[in-house]
Amino acid sequence: MPLPTDDVVTALTEALPGRVESEATNIAEFTVDRSGHESAGLPLIAVYPESIEEVQTVCRIASETNTPIVTRGAGTGLAGGAVAGPGEIVLSLMRMNRILKISQDNRLAVVQPGILNGALNAALQEHGMWWAPDPASKDISTVGGNVAMNAGGLLCAKYGVTREAVLALKVVLGDGRLIEVGHRTVKGVTGYDLCALMIGSEGTLGVIVECTLKLQPLVVGETVTLGAYFERLEDAAAGAAAITRDGLVPAIMELVDLRTLEALDDFFGESISRGSDAYLLVQCDGPDSHATAARVAELLTMPGSIVETTTDPVESARLVNIRRNAFPALEAKGTLLIEDIAVPRDQTVAAFSAIREIEAKYDVIIATSCHAGDGNLHPTFVFQGEEVPVHIWEAASEVFALALKLGGTLSGEHGIGLLKRRWLKDELGQDQFDLQRQIKAVFDPQGLLNPGKVF
Amino acid sequence: MPLPTDDVVTALTEALPGRVESEATNIAEFTVDRSGHESAGLPLIAVYPESIEEVQTVCRIASETNTPIVTRGAGTGLAGGAVAGPGEIVLSLMRMNRILKISQDNRLAVVQPGILNGALNAALQEHGMWWAPDPASKDISTVGGNVAMNAGGLLCAKYGVTREAVLALKVVLGDGRLIEVGHRTVKGVTGYDLCALMIGSEGTLGVIVECTLKLQPLVVGETVTLGAYFERLEDAAAGAAAITRDGLVPAIMELVDLRTLEALDDFFGESISRGSDAYLLVQCDGPDSHATAARVAELLTMPGSIVETTTDPVESARLVNIRRNAFPALEAKGTLLIEDIAVPRDQTVAAFSAIREIEAKYDVIIATSCHAGDGNLHPTFVFQGEEVPVHIWEAASEVFALALKLGGTLSGEHGIGLLKRRWLKDELGQDQFDLQRQIKAVFDPQGLLNPGKVF
Repeated sequence: MPLPTDDVVTALTEALPGRVESEATNIAEFTVDRSGHESAGLPLIAVYPESIEEVQTVCRIASETNTPIVTRGAGTGLAGGAVAGPGEIVLSLMRMNRILKISQDNRLAVVQPGILNGALNAALQEHGMWWAPDPASKDISTVGGNVAMNAGGLLCAKYGVTREAVLALKVVLGDGRLIEVGHRTVKGVTGYDLCALMIGSEGTLGVIVECTLKLQPLVVGETVTLGAYFERLEDAAAGAAAITRDGLVPAIMELVDLRTLEALDDFFGESISRGSDAYLLVQCDGPDSHATAARVAELLTMPGSIVETTTDPVESARLVNIRRNAFPALEAKGTLLIEDIAVPRDQTVAAFSAIREIEAKYDVIIATSCHAGDGNLHPTFVFQGEEVPVHIWEAASEVFALALKLGGTLSGEHGIGLLKRRWLKDELGQDQFDLQRQIKAVFDPQGLLNPGKVF
Repeated sequence: MPLPTDDVVTALTEALPGRVESEATNIAEFTVDRSGHESAGLPLIAVYPESIEEVQTVCRIASETNTPIVTRGAGTGLAGGAVAGPGEIVLSLMRMNRILKISQDNRLAVVQPGILNGALNAALQEHGMWWAPDPASKDISTVGGNVAMNAGGLLCAKYGVTREAVLALKVVLGDGRLIEVGHRTVKGVTGYDLCALMIGSEGTLGVIVECTLKLQPLVVGETVTLGAYFERLEDAAAGAAAITRDGLVPAIMELVDLRTLEALDDFFGESISRGSDAYLLVQCDGPDSHATAARVAELLTMPGSIVETTTDPVESARLVNIRRNAFPALEAKGTLLIEDIAVPRDQTVAAFSAIREIEAKYDVIIATSCHAGDGNLHPTFVFQGEEVPVHIWEAASEVFALALKLGGTLSGEHGIGLLKRRWLKDELGQDQFDLQRQIKAVFDPQGLLNPGKVF
């Protein structure tokens, strides 16, 4: 049955004047995200609701006309999860970007989903608090997007993932009904944890329209930054493992491999790598930052390593930026397919070593940086041209199989979206895969919310 | 259709020799937990599987014969969630109590569900780690039970609830199939978070047969304990609020009211209360414990307050035991109905004050202690006799309505079980209640797992 697309566009336009956009030039951006994937064509229409009621109206019209909805934040996703195509409504939450409440007494904030993570944290700072989720995209990605993806980042080993930083959500279901899941309290055990279920569901279960966020007081103490250069990647990984085994909890622990260092040297036209094969960035915060940093330096000092420790902001920024510039430096070399596996921390070296073998086998370039505190690796394929070549997908497929073989996961923080659907069942197994699809059907029996994503 | 109960008992006995028990004197304990609720009669049989395969066998036989299963740990629940009655199989996991793996490199432990929380932590200590969930029952409750209830405790404001301390679970479904949910890695975003869904599901979605737990390194620094006595409860609550507002994060912050102090004075035959109307216990740990404690003392010092600060273990234990003896002291006064609401922290005083009004209205005794760091109150009804009198349920019902009115929840950490079913819909709303029941049906289409509980 063909969709009555004219009716949908008319109904949305009439119901929500000033909130719709269907000019091709203005909706073309919704056919892509930051994954490199592009949909088959333009979506039907984009709607920019400004209230929960308007989101409900969109969902009601979509439900009545059986029209798919792709909910969208800032479009910074790396897995194609927010890409929209023909016949689909784009539900942009970018105009719902207000902070509704900040409470120091309850250590929480209530926000609309379209606010940028960085903007929220700027506002929270004057209240002496922060929201811990720290994806690399934080200055350009929305809180709602972070929640929908269960975003990770650099700080997770110490400060947790997004799931641990959300208390409650208001969610509009596919048919327009509004539910509130979770609790405004720190504790709450009434029935199933639908709030946690919603976090990371990639727009497939409902539209997140309001977020009650768990905040933390600003970290006290002076931050100490260490940059360590190693002759061998194995030594850097062994150093990171020793830090974890010793019971230390740095805020940041990032490992950068030789391929990435080579790109950085070229990018800056100077020896960023200092001739080393691996670089480990460690940042220690909190009241014991100096004691922790001293012990970290001790553990990283070994034959062939150079360890720099600083509290100077400029020098610290230089050490941090070696890691932060990894992707810009690689982008200067070609198009990137940024992958996102996670393995148990003690399998990190095995993962790096197997990635080297896959690189040789497929004659590809894989530059890898790694959140060494939590075993989340970003093997990044560098290639020429727009489309991901078949042999790179084949190599990526081996990387995913490797992650599962080592007891890890297909995706640490980027999600499944479109790009990893074909491997999801390998990780979940048929039984869990079926359960997940049945849960999807409970929330969205018409199958209109972000169809074709995840499963 | 009557159940072929003889067939079930015969099938289980034949399939699992040495694992079953049906003598009345040996299964009578399963008709109660610590809630005071007693089921209508003896269950059919109790099974004590010793492996995952044996759990699967129990579930298969139950499924084939359409017989309900009540999964059971140590039976320390306070909401009737593990109480079994006529026609039901008790699936005791107490023999599955081994630690399968402890990894410092990955900061995780893999355990069977029947291990006691306290026993696990004793074993972890020599590896320099601990598992943070800290219910008051920790020495007598199982890890599996803690997970099934999403247990809380004293440390949650700083160290989180059980959900934040579980990485992955193996779960046997009602029909005997085994699934693995969650990730062994710190991060993982492949599909819906069924691990979080299982945590706190009170035995209604599956049987948790193996737990991969997220551990923390042992806390460094000297622990500082403060005991503060106040002329008015409002002052104690204001002190606790000031501590939170100031950005401090004590490990423990417990508020004890006048009714409880009176019971403690009687219990010990001396003036534990020192004539005060409220007592606040604060414990600061970690590298900044002394600085935090000094600031806490400053904030609690006000007209009419007495603040004691100590690092001496004996003196510290004395201050802690004032709180720890609250329930034993109250039990000496009569039978207890221990309730468990949570409210946003800034509503704590309002909650205490309204509880006083309910107490007067129904002419009952309600002694309340409160996890002041997270707004979780335990209004405890003290009465004579075994059965909870009707007017006490009526008063309790007003307490639950109060929690919802203040933006809080029916249950911070004890769960719904049997005792709070009738109020669950008030909190969730009809739409979410229906979604939760549909999720139950996805996992347990025959409705055999802990029937009649939660919903």
